[in-house]
Amino acid sequence: MAKYIISASEAQSMAKSRGLTVPQLLPSLVKSAQALARPPISNFHVGAVGLSSDGRIFFGANVEFPGLPLHHSIHAEQFLITNLAAHGGGPRLLYMAVSAAPCGHCRQFLQEVRGVSDTQIVITDEPQENPDYRPISSILPNPFGPYDLLDQEMPLILEKHDNQLCLKDQPFLTQNGNLTNLSNGYAELAIKNEENLKNKALEAARESHAPYSGCPSGVALMDCEGKVYKGSYMESAAYNPSMMPVQAAVVAYMAAGGGGYERIVAAVLVEKEGVSVRQEATARLMLNHVSPKCELRVVHCV
Amino acid sequence: MAKYIISASEAQSMAKSRGLTVPQLLPSLVKSAQALARPPISNFHVGAVGLSSDGRIFFGANVEFPGLPLHHSIHAEQFLITNLAAHGGGPRLLYMAVSAAPCGHCRQFLQEVRGVSDTQIVITDEPQENPDYRPISSILPNPFGPYDLLDQEMPLILEKHDNQLCLKDQPFLTQNGNLTNLSNGYAELAIKNEENLKNKALEAARESHAPYSGCPSGVALMDCEGKVYKGSYMESAAYNPSMMPVQAAVVAYMAAGGGGYERIVAAVLVEKEGVSVRQEATARLMLNHVSPKCELRVVHCV
Ligand SMILES: [Zn+2]
Ligand SMILES: [Zn+2]
Repeated sequence: MAKYIISASEAQSMAKSRGLTVPQLLPSLVKSAQALARPPISNFHVGAVGLSSDGRIFFGANVEFPGLPLHHSIHAEQFLITNLAAHGGGPRLLYMAVSAAPCGHCRQFLQEVRGVSDTQIVITDEPQENPDYRPISSILPNPFGPYDLLDQEMPLILEKHDNQLCLKDQPFLTQNGNLTNLSNGYAELAIKNEENLKNKALEAARESHAPYSGCPSGVALMDCEGKVYKGSYMESAAYNPSMMPVQAAVVAYMAAGGGGYERIVAAVLVEKEGVSVRQEATARLMLNHVSPKCELRVVHCV
Repeated sequence: MAKYIISASEAQSMAKSRGLTVPQLLPSLVKSAQALARPPISNFHVGAVGLSSDGRIFFGANVEFPGLPLHHSIHAEQFLITNLAAHGGGPRLLYMAVSAAPCGHCRQFLQEVRGVSDTQIVITDEPQENPDYRPISSILPNPFGPYDLLDQEMPLILEKHDNQLCLKDQPFLTQNGNLTNLSNGYAELAIKNEENLKNKALEAARESHAPYSGCPSGVALMDCEGKVYKGSYMESAAYNPSMMPVQAAVVAYMAAGGGGYERIVAAVLVEKEGVSVRQEATARLMLNHVSPKCELRVVHCV
């Protein structure tokens, strides 16, 4: 199975065996990150490798979805942060090596991580003995970000969020013991996992980062074996670079070695009703393209 | 009517009357640009004012659309570039004054303008006698952009594009002399303007900037008086910051003093069929939210 995380001890011993520090090791891992990319539109494989403050190494790669507008694309740096956030990767990202200069969209998205201006970054797809690390502040001087809009105490990405949300009592997969309309051959599996899907999507919504709009959301995906993957919405102060919850859940699916998208057969989105940022229609659009067999249910929360 | 363009001679005389050069004048116009914003989600009014190489001044302001994911938002800098592109505003953007530090998404989008690294920018919402202009390269060092992916000769935004496209012969608003299904009370007007709508959308698609995906597209909107506004898709080398064609058409509508969105009653999208970037479903989603009365038709091109 492809590797999206390296444990702290393994990172240490990998570095030691080559006579390097862990930050020095990162560039040599960029090519393996690139190999995880799924860019069928550009065929441009981007890889990102990050060292978290808990000593673990996290991978990210770019993902593109043909048939949709390009804002559905997930960049390697966003994948990396989503992977980190999903695995409680410590509150800080210390070092980062990426195969290509981060685009402005990613430089902006990264601003949602506290202290990211001090994160050391190097742009290379080759092993390097003395990587030329520079702070992210040097590639996004005079930034616009959360510090312009939020109180200092508000949690950022990688920090603990608990949006106080609970599900509205709504008919879901089953109604009076009958299946409402799941018809893709995975109905029984979805019913069996109904509570788990709802709870994981709610958890993801509670953990989501939506301080600018106040519209948290989360998605849970179920694969054809009944395994569930969750993804939290992550909002950017600059709006457009925000990471949609389906995208975050796809990252979780990939990072867990989930395989082809066609194996995703059920999904639940939890969001508020009638608010100013709503994911439902776009999540449906994306899942219809990416995993046509997948049935999406929406459960509103308050 | 709100002003989105100032002619070269008017700009000259405005500057002269205050004993300033035109670049020195720009900061004093930022507040009028901010007043054009429509940000119902953030209530954060951003304004951008730019001086083109043909001497005209162009305005831009941010626009947000409640009920959709935030990637539908139009930033002031994107509005400005779209306004410039739509009015053949010379091949270069020389100076720019903006009310807030441009976000990374905009710094990236701006890379599609040739020579933008030398464009002089100042961040201020107050008149200033000696604006502290700095090159855009200073706020996006080590950029990723078109120069990494395209031949030098390929046209960028603000340069003449002619994607060789023609419409497929398709049933449109009328079929055998009968209206297909326009039912919003503006059927007659739409039929009367059918050719104009199709031609303007095709023109917009021919002029669109889609060198990365090869999937050009354009939109024409008709208001309730039969006036038609067109918008071209503008792709970013970094994918996500691309400007969708409906968004570009909404900018044209606003810049022409179009009024409330509910006055938009018909729309045509021209794009290729079955290609890797398709706007149809997302354009429909956006128009349904923004102008529920508007009927969108899609005409494919080859
Ligand atoms: Zn990026
Ligand atoms: Zn922006």
